[in-house]
Amino acid sequence: MLNLTMPTFVQVIEFLGTFAFAISGIRLASAKKFDWFGAYVVGVATAVGGGTFRDMMLGVTPFWMTDSIYLVCSGMALLCVIMFSKYLIRLNNTFFIFDAIGLALFTVVGVQKTLDCGYHLWVAIIMGTMTGAAGGVIRDVFINEIPLIFRKEIYAMACVIGGIVYGICNIMDMNMHFTHILCGTSVFLVRILAVKFHICLPTLKGGEE
Amino acid sequence: MLNLTMPTFVQVIEFLGTFAFAISGIRLASAKKFDWFGAYVVGVATAVGGGTFRDMMLGVTPFWMTDSIYLVCSGMALLCVIMFSKYLIRLNNTFFIFDAIGLALFTVVGVQKTLDCGYHLWVAIIMGTMTGAAGGVIRDVFINEIPLIFRKEIYAMACVIGGIVYGICNIMDMNMHFTHILCGTSVFLVRILAVKFHICLPTLKGGEE
Amino acid sequence: MLNLTMPTFVQVIEFLGTFAFAISGIRLASAKKFDWFGAYVVGVATAVGGGTFRDMMLGVTPFWMTDSIYLVCSGMALLCVIMFSKYLIRLNNTFFIFDAIGLALFTVVGVQKTLDCGYHLWVAIIMGTMTGAAGGVIRDVFINEIPLIFRKEIYAMACVIGGIVYGICNIMDMNMHFTHILCGTSVFLVRILAVKFHICLPTLKGGEE
Repeated sequence: MLNLTMPTFVQVIEFLGTFAFAISGIRLASAKKFDWFGAYVVGVATAVGGGTFRDMMLGVTPFWMTDSIYLVCSGMALLCVIMFSKYLIRLNNTFFIFDAIGLALFTVVGVQKTLDCGYHLWVAIIMGTMTGAAGGVIRDVFINEIPLIFRKEIYAMACVIGGIVYGICNIMDMNMHFTHILCGTSVFLVRILAVKFHICLPTLKGGEE
Repeated sequence: MLNLTMPTFVQVIEFLGTFAFAISGIRLASAKKFDWFGAYVVGVATAVGGGTFRDMMLGVTPFWMTDSIYLVCSGMALLCVIMFSKYLIRLNNTFFIFDAIGLALFTVVGVQKTLDCGYHLWVAIIMGTMTGAAGGVIRDVFINEIPLIFRKEIYAMACVIGGIVYGICNIMDMNMHFTHILCGTSVFLVRILAVKFHICLPTLKGGEE
Repeated sequence: MLNLTMPTFVQVIEFLGTFAFAISGIRLASAKKFDWFGAYVVGVATAVGGGTFRDMMLGVTPFWMTDSIYLVCSGMALLCVIMFSKYLIRLNNTFFIFDAIGLALFTVVGVQKTLDCGYHLWVAIIMGTMTGAAGGVIRDVFINEIPLIFRKEIYAMACVIGGIVYGICNIMDMNMHFTHILCGTSVFLVRILAVKFHICLPTLKGGEE
């Protein structure tokens, strides 16, 4: 998003994040025997779905409609899965790191964009979380599974914590660049630590039957 | 919604309705072993999902983004389920009444807001129904079940009937306060009677295979 | 859409397309024992869901909110299924033709509307595809099945090809009427040929487990 004004480092990170998100969608779709087109749609939805809902709620044009890089990036992810599917399993750890980086960056972008639109911080935290995590929910709805992030290691919660860090930095009147880095780092660290130590939120008991 | 201008009685009703909707989402999520965060998301989606889609279609900012009460209310519902899950089953009838009250109130709010935006009555009836019933559909998509309201006792149809009552009141040039009460009461009564006497709409035969 | 300014022929075609889409939703819903209301909702969602998401992304009012013909048409489809369900199976080929016509027309409408809003051609191709194919995805999410179009004969891909034909016509500075006809015809032919010769896109291997 806004990739004409942001420095190149962020663009590279964002590309890697989009790529990792798209790969995760495409691989889950391929496990369900989707065809190339279906897998691409699931990959795109995973990568841009969260940001699209955020933008529709904010009342602005979905970010991917003004810059084709996100769809191109998802297309490259599809090519990779088609050509190198056998070798991708070995790269699981790499993709996991990319995914965590993407989650962190998407959260920062979502929080910042919502604040720029003039909303309260609590709305921004929700929108940051949605930017990072809603794509995975849409992916799981498409492949007809119960959304993974509602049951496994801390994922969306990492975005919420990152958003709170953002808010604390704001209250302390910190420089924006530093705020972004602290917010993103906290999302990244929470996610990495959660998976390394299998930290899950408690589940509920006492369902309807 | 609009809780600065409406009288306190409506706010209390709306709070109870949101609470009942959130409880229903959280309890169904807990039956699927969702974690606290996942259950909260399902609860929020049940409570505000319908109104969010309504507002996106009307081209206005989703109502919960300007007032945090809806998310706070859903959070309190989560706390209740966590702390009192054992005792909640005994309260099933209470929640059913709350849910019917919420359905009635959400319908009135949805119809009124759509008319205020300058749309025809038939659009308002659809939006009122969506406000009341779409949250339950989103909930069931998240927990990967076929939406309940498409198969069980009259639910969304009660909203449609309420919307028609609203329209009749309008044609008869009734006072707005009275129109709201008649519309809400008819939704509430249809829903209560449908469940009490197990009134279902007929189902279709002749599926594709 | 825009049915005041378009000639009657397009209106007839659009009516048939909406009807065929609604029929497909209602019949799949009836196979899942939905009640009349649920079946109607699934039918409407199939018929207007794609265009609704398109319009929300474009930032305009969903097309069906300004013209009741789409909901009336879906209601007539419901009546047909209720009354003639036994005879509908014999008409499968007729519905398949209607569906392909609807797909073609919806694609043309979606591409044109997006270009009219000032977006690039690649956005218009995506929006044309979404107008034609997203309704079927929403239908399958509602009935809790893996979206059919992600796995079966070429469907959404036909819309993409039609969009590309539209773009080529544009580059060649062709007259708009002719462009529409070429675009629609190519969607229709690709779809018909794909089903006749069972042309599928390749599926992916190398899923996550």
